[in-house]
Amino acid sequence: MPELATFGETMLRLSPPGDEPVETARTFEVHAAGAESNVAVAAQRLGVASTWLSKLPDSPPGRRVRSALRQHGVEPAVVLSEEGRQGTYYLESADQPRGRTVIYDREGAAVRTATAAELPTDRIERADAFHTTGITPALSETLATTTADLLEIAREADTTTVFDLNYRSKLWEPDRARETITDLLDLVDVFVVADRDAETVLGLAGSPTETAERLAADRDFETVVVTRGDEGAVAVHDGETHEQPAISAGDAHPVGTGDAFVGGFLASRLQSGSVPEALTYGAATAALKRTIPGDAAVVTPEAVEHTIEGGTEGIER
Amino acid sequence: MPELATFGETMLRLSPPGDEPVETARTFEVHAAGAESNVAVAAQRLGVASTWLSKLPDSPPGRRVRSALRQHGVEPAVVLSEEGRQGTYYLESADQPRGRTVIYDREGAAVRTATAAELPTDRIERADAFHTTGITPALSETLATTTADLLEIAREADTTTVFDLNYRSKLWEPDRARETITDLLDLVDVFVVADRDAETVLGLAGSPTETAERLAADRDFETVVVTRGDEGAVAVHDGETHEQPAISAGDAHPVGTGDAFVGGFLASRLQSGSVPEALTYGAATAALKRTIPGDAAVVTPEAVEHTIEGGTEGIER
Amino acid sequence: MPELATFGETMLRLSPPGDEPVETARTFEVHAAGAESNVAVAAQRLGVASTWLSKLPDSPPGRRVRSALRQHGVEPAVVLSEEGRQGTYYLESADQPRGRTVIYDREGAAVRTATAAELPTDRIERADAFHTTGITPALSETLATTTADLLEIAREADTTTVFDLNYRSKLWEPDRARETITDLLDLVDVFVVADRDAETVLGLAGSPTETAERLAADRDFETVVVTRGDEGAVAVHDGETHEQPAISAGDAHPVGTGDAFVGGFLASRLQSGSVPEALTYGAATAALKRTIPGDAAVVTPEAVEHTIEGGTEGIER
Amino acid sequence: MPELATFGETMLRLSPPGDEPVETARTFEVHAAGAESNVAVAAQRLGVASTWLSKLPDSPPGRRVRSALRQHGVEPAVVLSEEGRQGTYYLESADQPRGRTVIYDREGAAVRTATAAELPTDRIERADAFHTTGITPALSETLATTTADLLEIAREADTTTVFDLNYRSKLWEPDRARETITDLLDLVDVFVVADRDAETVLGLAGSPTETAERLAADRDFETVVVTRGDEGAVAVHDGETHEQPAISAGDAHPVGTGDAFVGGFLASRLQSGSVPEALTYGAATAALKRTIPGDAAVVTPEAVEHTIEGGTEGIER
Amino acid sequence: MPELATFGETMLRLSPPGDEPVETARTFEVHAAGAESNVAVAAQRLGVASTWLSKLPDSPPGRRVRSALRQHGVEPAVVLSEEGRQGTYYLESADQPRGRTVIYDREGAAVRTATAAELPTDRIERADAFHTTGITPALSETLATTTADLLEIAREADTTTVFDLNYRSKLWEPDRARETITDLLDLVDVFVVADRDAETVLGLAGSPTETAERLAADRDFETVVVTRGDEGAVAVHDGETHEQPAISAGDAHPVGTGDAFVGGFLASRLQSGSVPEALTYGAATAALKRTIPGDAAVVTPEAVEHTIEGGTEGIER
Amino acid sequence: MPELATFGETMLRLSPPGDEPVETARTFEVHAAGAESNVAVAAQRLGVASTWLSKLPDSPPGRRVRSALRQHGVEPAVVLSEEGRQGTYYLESADQPRGRTVIYDREGAAVRTATAAELPTDRIERADAFHTTGITPALSETLATTTADLLEIAREADTTTVFDLNYRSKLWEPDRARETITDLLDLVDVFVVADRDAETVLGLAGSPTETAERLAADRDFETVVVTRGDEGAVAVHDGETHEQPAISAGDAHPVGTGDAFVGGFLASRLQSGSVPEALTYGAATAALKRTIPGDAAVVTPEAVEHTIEGGTEGIER
Repeated sequence: MPELATFGETMLRLSPPGDEPVETARTFEVHAAGAESNVAVAAQRLGVASTWLSKLPDSPPGRRVRSALRQHGVEPAVVLSEEGRQGTYYLESADQPRGRTVIYDREGAAVRTATAAELPTDRIERADAFHTTGITPALSETLATTTADLLEIAREADTTTVFDLNYRSKLWEPDRARETITDLLDLVDVFVVADRDAETVLGLAGSPTETAERLAADRDFETVVVTRGDEGAVAVHDGETHEQPAISAGDAHPVGTGDAFVGGFLASRLQSGSVPEALTYGAATAALKRTIPGDAAVVTPEAVEHTIEGGTEGIER
Repeated sequence: MPELATFGETMLRLSPPGDEPVETARTFEVHAAGAESNVAVAAQRLGVASTWLSKLPDSPPGRRVRSALRQHGVEPAVVLSEEGRQGTYYLESADQPRGRTVIYDREGAAVRTATAAELPTDRIERADAFHTTGITPALSETLATTTADLLEIAREADTTTVFDLNYRSKLWEPDRARETITDLLDLVDVFVVADRDAETVLGLAGSPTETAERLAADRDFETVVVTRGDEGAVAVHDGETHEQPAISAGDAHPVGTGDAFVGGFLASRLQSGSVPEALTYGAATAALKRTIPGDAAVVTPEAVEHTIEGGTEGIER
Repeated sequence: MPELATFGETMLRLSPPGDEPVETARTFEVHAAGAESNVAVAAQRLGVASTWLSKLPDSPPGRRVRSALRQHGVEPAVVLSEEGRQGTYYLESADQPRGRTVIYDREGAAVRTATAAELPTDRIERADAFHTTGITPALSETLATTTADLLEIAREADTTTVFDLNYRSKLWEPDRARETITDLLDLVDVFVVADRDAETVLGLAGSPTETAERLAADRDFETVVVTRGDEGAVAVHDGETHEQPAISAGDAHPVGTGDAFVGGFLASRLQSGSVPEALTYGAATAALKRTIPGDAAVVTPEAVEHTIEGGTEGIER
Repeated sequence: MPELATFGETMLRLSPPGDEPVETARTFEVHAAGAESNVAVAAQRLGVASTWLSKLPDSPPGRRVRSALRQHGVEPAVVLSEEGRQGTYYLESADQPRGRTVIYDREGAAVRTATAAELPTDRIERADAFHTTGITPALSETLATTTADLLEIAREADTTTVFDLNYRSKLWEPDRARETITDLLDLVDVFVVADRDAETVLGLAGSPTETAERLAADRDFETVVVTRGDEGAVAVHDGETHEQPAISAGDAHPVGTGDAFVGGFLASRLQSGSVPEALTYGAATAALKRTIPGDAAVVTPEAVEHTIEGGTEGIER
Repeated sequence: MPELATFGETMLRLSPPGDEPVETARTFEVHAAGAESNVAVAAQRLGVASTWLSKLPDSPPGRRVRSALRQHGVEPAVVLSEEGRQGTYYLESADQPRGRTVIYDREGAAVRTATAAELPTDRIERADAFHTTGITPALSETLATTTADLLEIAREADTTTVFDLNYRSKLWEPDRARETITDLLDLVDVFVVADRDAETVLGLAGSPTETAERLAADRDFETVVVTRGDEGAVAVHDGETHEQPAISAGDAHPVGTGDAFVGGFLASRLQSGSVPEALTYGAATAALKRTIPGDAAVVTPEAVEHTIEGGTEGIER
Repeated sequence: MPELATFGETMLRLSPPGDEPVETARTFEVHAAGAESNVAVAAQRLGVASTWLSKLPDSPPGRRVRSALRQHGVEPAVVLSEEGRQGTYYLESADQPRGRTVIYDREGAAVRTATAAELPTDRIERADAFHTTGITPALSETLATTTADLLEIAREADTTTVFDLNYRSKLWEPDRARETITDLLDLVDVFVVADRDAETVLGLAGSPTETAERLAADRDFETVVVTRGDEGAVAVHDGETHEQPAISAGDAHPVGTGDAFVGGFLASRLQSGSVPEALTYGAATAALKRTIPGDAAVVTPEAVEHTIEGGTEGIER
């Protein structure tokens, strides 16, 4: 079984049931949610032994996060801390024109002080791939340094590094994001970016294919993947360009779709799928995620394969 | 801050969760619901100091209604009564062909005996506008008289009178409605009517624009607004006709859409918006309402403005 | 299988979950509740073919009541009416000192106009026993007459008449209750009364035993049963006095305990139990009811017998 | 009132709320579900006195099923058994590409040993119609025999026999289904089959009309009905072919649509509707079912007629 | 109507339903909770016009708090801030030995920067009484200053100052609490303290009566109230000592009992009750609170009076 | 970290919320429940690396069980099987006299065919202790053999064997239990038995101390532990008798108390606690369990130690 290590923050997501506004909510549904742990969950469920490195407060809310990941078989290799809080976010969902509203409450989270020295970096060294995202260095100066340190450690250990730009406008400005991330990219083997973020942060306008090829031309990535929501994804690998259309799916639970794509992509790739196969696998995992409550892609290899085959007319019984 | 006073009945709405029929329901969700208090809630939330005049039983269900309005900042200027019950209605919702079913249980409600003499009419006199609907005079003889009395008081105090025809076929016949309402219209400054009701009650067939212009021609209204669900609204004001398309929105929670429109319209108009601006503001408030559970438009000025700008592609985070 | 017919009002009971006050409730739990139908449910579940006569509005809330009774096998022999509403009551529950609060909302209920002529009285004529309570004649003039008419019909058909005084201070004054009920008692074979009501309405102070013996001495009842909550019940039958202690039980769901007692008593009596056996059976049914949510005693003969044997230490598995 | 008897298994359906996967569910919603009892419920609610014959474990889960049917007025004429369990199934629902997943857990159910000798077959003899489906003989050897025996009993009593092929691929192979069912068809008056099943089991490809006419030509059925989901149904009766388009409806609760169709069809047919009227009635019942949670069609004659008239634009109030 | 102003932090309380641990919770129930706003709610509901001064984030969670207070008629005179978060706390409840666990998550709350200059202090000046607690100065240096400033403003305006020591060991050490609070006490007219806190913070061991008398002797308070949970409260006022036993009550919802006591005490005192009357009123309000979910005392004057009379045996109906 | 391996069946427990009977339940709460996995959960949470060996159906319900154990950090070393079902049980709970009712639905479970050959027995060999119970050999002939085989494997690997008699009267008769279990006891190092079971199955009447000493005298156990619910536990070890009183606790969630005791006992013992220390640790874990919903003891070492210290008066905050 191939191994994946990820690093980042996982929050408790608090969402009123149905279309209820936060202002009038009497209950919140609770989920664990974080880009990197979402990827770990999807990959683990699809056959990759996945570890999530992080720092959590040693408290019931911190343990709530840990048990959520364990439930899917992901190993939480976490530092438990007496300092810092458990970050949360409020998610309010409705049809247009209200749409989805995210209110972050992640200031002061324990993870913001995590350093490479205190994390079990041997999990990165022995893994086949290490994944983190552009959210992590946005969270604190310390985490920007830690992100760089961990990528460095991975590179030295010949662990493939995977970086998803994942720009969050509520965390930082495009300029600061560009500056920080550009420095990190030298340490990245597989670079994933939404075409919208490529434009906002990296200034790369154009079709996903143009963006992917431009990125591949500019830097020495092993693989570049550019995603575009409903329009699918494009990868450039070994000089070849591979296009993958999105797989049509419901829209009830879109949060975490991008992470499910990356998790599915990596699961396939690490189990020796080719890049185009991995793109398809990622697209199917992403399509399934859109039908699953919470941030985690509660998928199985069978469901992903069934989705790729395009089955499921009617109810089999 | 401009002031608005409204007068009418507010019921407790009892609705089974999801698509469950009343016949098999084990729980009811509880909301406060009434055309005039819905208008007060929307207006209050959008910057108008709103008061709702009414009569409630001095009982836990009566207090349930009062606290629901207070929650949004509306001041319930209510007479508490030892006599009369708290009106309710059952609401059953499903997709077509079942659709929505309303079962009124509002007979014997305390409000039916409310007289101008016992109500705090100084709230009307000092307000900038007074709003009520055609539901109120339909509820009892006493209320028909009270409605006329309150409109009279408003007029004498130079408070702008706003009347929404709001025909309810389960309460009275078109003929009786026409007779009663026609008498009231001499006291009305701003007249709002759904084009369907204009035809049923007032016998005015034709496009919303034709209806609005005809109404404006026939009577000495300050403003006439004719609404038409998915097709928007038309206002005639100062001899000019203004057309406002509906803003596209989900269909999950349509109950209260018309009231949200009026509340948004008045909020803008009373804060010195022009009539076309107020129409747009009303349309956006109505669109948001369709995504919010319950009868009340739990909106903010920011959400209304965002809706007018047509934003919200994707999730900002 | 012996047959029982009952007649009375059944309401929808709306109760906030847990200890929530009605004033702040977001949901109500829904149960069907009525003294006479409660008796029918208990008796039916314990082996007596039970019919409940009444009048219901032909509406979803009316059908909600009907299906609740059918669920337990009781046959609702009801007139469906276009007039009149479905009565409800709000029930708020908490520990002392808040205690339980009942807010009736039963004015205008369809049943209030029910007459003997429109009811399927053949069900009474062919039954072994007919049961109603002092709540029924309190509800309207018409129902006072109907109650007398039905007792008369039962008597003429040699159907044993059972009457539970069941005084409700929110419905009428003791004087009016005494006057109405005293007239009915000539038609009653089995008279059940709480000792508190015997004092309030009939002016009979003293111990339950004294009250029972006094009632038996004064009138020509077949059986008199006086109940006293935690202290059990006393019956006088054929000149003999039988005392039955209450069976200790939890206090989570006391509403309907008295009806469960009567239902259990009748079930045993009609299946040829002796009066003391029937008292024991009633006490066990009442004890079980106190542990069952809602007004209905969802019991089985096995559970009643197990309770009589005093079993249930620990969990059998 | 005409009478219908049905025979088959009814399970407890356990479904996580909303789109939740079974793997992560904390609660299951509970419904009673079985093709033949679904038909009985729909027919009973639409004016036919319906009895459901079966065998249930004498346990709380068995009683749960019984009370679910009683609630709708269906009489459960069941053998209570000390042996055998209550069958269940897990139902997981989501949008495409996840779709609906059914996990049967019906092995060892009490009903599998039911024999004609122990069932109250007088209910079949006195009924106007007897209905069962191809699910029943698939469940056990004993039930295959019992199915044949009951059809025989019905035929001898001049009770119209109705058989819905209802192929379940998780219960048996097409070959075994064909063999068993072909033998039964000689005893069938009204044969209902989905066009997909006609192809899979009977090898009849072609349009629903072709299939229906072919079936009518091959055997001596009184009526043949071929259904085709979104495309409606075709009946051949007395040499005439009748086509009925599906009535458009939501897709929230499709489980039980086919049974609702048959229940509506039979309700109309037994109340002396013509075959084309019955087809329309069935199509409207099926359309309503798609909007009702659970397996049972909680319909009323008024709702079915309203659906046939194509009403329900907007909310009437 | 007398007027009360309070100042302090209000949090969102997140509690798993029933006895569920936070670690395994899928939902949280949401309540607004803060000592000073709890007092305002109780006082408002019991006849005092109450205002709560504070600072909230201008966000849905901040508005959630505001609407919770408005619901009870309290006027939230709040500064809305772009900076700072909405404080929360997790509450886990169970029987002994697990007991109740409070996990504060109130770091970085918007209120921590609130200054007298930005708050609407005219509300304090025109009020009859101003209330705050020892929690407020524990939250930040700024708030320690602000607390002193507001007490000063109250004193200068002849508004009675009320201070409840309310020691929170998770916020500060006893030494620091003593130092800060001792300075404030010169500005306090009515001083309330739990006997446990008097010992921990002020070093006053002894019976509540001894503690109260000692406090009254040492400083120039108008009134001293010492509370002792199950054993009631003692007040020293005008040289007289008044003892009030606790009123027995359930234990389901103890959080907020102390605040309910103070709210009830002040409501009575401000409506010209004597000190012993106010103690009784406070004890009854506290007893009722223990039966009400959430932190707020959803009481009525009638319920408080009924509790004082010691009523509520059985259910009145 | 010491290691523990356990082997046995884990069911899905389906329980209606609150006091609701199964017969009328609309929802079931879902928990994973099995004596041996309960022990593994408690031990894992208290510092022992725990593995649970078993066989599960390769289906969503089987995965539901697996993820429930993973959530607590237990490693499910399970064979996934295409054959056999997921066992369940229904649990109905209420106060006396209804009490708790368990309805097993575990026939045909996948685990019943589990053999030592297909299980990952290396987990037993490398563990410090291996635990199973008398439930396992009661489930099938195969499992009786497998239980013996696994105990043999443990013994040969010098893994301490722990056996809890855990008699289930719904699974087998005392005679058959005695016969089967007596054979196994030669392979057992630590024997745990409830005094009631010691009497029923082994014929050992007398006080727990007498029973424990008698068992220790009769056989060559390393340790004998006899438990007695409210009266605590007695251990005989190395010729010494240690008595441990029960720790008083609520009674809301007693299911799993015995397993929590064993889990706590083993956790302490394996972390080199003495036998009396382990008894205390077990008693505290058991006391906490009685306050935790579900079968699993969601405890922490801190909570156990706090319970031993007897803390938790009031709420610390």
